Amino acid sequence: MTYCVALNLAEGLVLASDTRTNAGVDHIATFTKMRVLEKPGQAVVVLMSAGNLATTQSVLSLLQGRRGEDGLPAIVSVPSLYEAAVMVGAVLREVVARDASATGMNAGIDFGSSFLVAGQIAGEAPRLFNVYPQGNFIEATPDTPYFQIGESKYGKPIIDRVVDYDTALPEGATCVLISFDSTIRSNLSVGLPIDLMLYLRDSFDTRQRRRFDENDAYYREIRQAWSRGLRDTFTRLPVLPPLASG
Amino acid sequence: MTYCVALNLAEGLVLASDTRTNAGVDHIATFTKMRVLEKPGQAVVVLMSAGNLATTQSVLSLLQGRRGEDGLPAIVSVPSLYEAAVMVGAVLREVVARDASATGMNAGIDFGSSFLVAGQIAGEAPRLFNVYPQGNFIEATPDTPYFQIGESKYGKPIIDRVVDYDTALPEGATCVLISFDSTIRSNLSVGLPIDLMLYLRDSFDTRQRRRFDENDAYYREIRQAWSRGLRDTFTRLPVLPPLASG
Repeated sequence: MTYCVALNLAEGLVLASDTRTNAGVDHIATFTKMRVLEKPGQAVVVLMSAGNLATTQSVLSLLQGRRGEDGLPAIVSVPSLYEAAVMVGAVLREVVARDASATGMNAGIDFGSSFLVAGQIAGEAPRLFNVYPQGNFIEATPDTPYFQIGESKYGKPIIDRVVDYDTALPEGATCVLISFDSTIRSNLSVGLPIDLMLYLRDSFDTRQRRRFDENDAYYREIRQAWSRGLRDTFTRLPVLPPLASG
Repeated sequence: MTYCVALNLAEGLVLASDTRTNAGVDHIATFTKMRVLEKPGQAVVVLMSAGNLATTQSVLSLLQGRRGEDGLPAIVSVPSLYEAAVMVGAVLREVVARDASATGMNAGIDFGSSFLVAGQIAGEAPRLFNVYPQGNFIEATPDTPYFQIGESKYGKPIIDRVVDYDTALPEGATCVLISFDSTIRSNLSVGLPIDLMLYLRDSFDTRQRRRFDENDAYYREIRQAWSRGLRDTFTRLPVLPPLASG
């Protein structure tokens, strides 16, 4: 499994992904699920992935290898992030068609993958797309400024309660880390470290990135404070009155 | 969808179920998913169900209709709650075999259902079983004193953080109501009212029951206090320091 979250807020983007992959509980490994591609001052395209690792790696290899005349991956020379999402969807279909076509060899394997495509192309605001395993996609809007892929349910309530379009980037990032904590506690197949990236609108600066592992002081601090705060809040709730006899 | 939770704690049982059923978003109705059967002073058997409504209703009708010599449903005359779980599993298999057997008429319908079987038979402690759609089942233990069926993920983190075997019944009930609130906010197919029952160990008293709807003063109060407490806790978390350049 996997857990990736992306927020597209007024100030910019908050992007986070876990790093655990597994093919059964006896085959667990660490792979980053966040890929940052850029053309300085012109384009930032961040891809996050969930699903079949062979598929996601092939999609990323092909996207990175297909170069434009400037020698950069073609995906950073699109006129609009919409076109980047189209490109991801097309390559995804191509890979699945190639790998899943061998009849009799599929053994019930799900070749599907999902991608979050986030970033900014000069001339546009930052945008965020969720590319489905079928290659089609939807875009986040201020009404619902975030997408999750992978194991999304455990960590959704806290995002719904805290984040809206005007949330500041650091606050959004803290909420996303708490959302990861809830998910990691509940699903063993989502695991540390977490790759986090903040992208400030119009900056074209991709350096605000950090990997959080279990020894990260900030992550430990907010996990503990959150846990304590929840328990304190719970303890202060009014006590259930005796139930009416039924 | 459905959401049911049962806690088997040192003091007794906390049982809760939502009441929404749907066959598509344009076909929503209210049905209780909690059935209480008893033999005064001898047996309390509570059944909660998730899954195909036709299947769960048939299982309950058959369980309620099959009487022993005393005229009571046979399921309240079992020597052990284990036998009640066996009975539920057997009737579940029988109903699915009957309803799903007509070839060409199944139209991709999932006839499966899950049941929580909770209660106490005189001579035993209270017990709690989770009967799978296959009719086999598992039992809760002090290590993991609760089961959920239906839409379980949104409401699981709070239970994991708050409940253990020694949690008092009213506190367990409050936690369960909060867990329902998180679930109801996230999944439209889980809906109010919530049926809640507390069963005090060795009491054989099934009267501690209440239905919570959106106008229930206590439910409103804890929802608001919880929401406020989460936001306050979040606001007090340390602010994310600038991320190291990558």
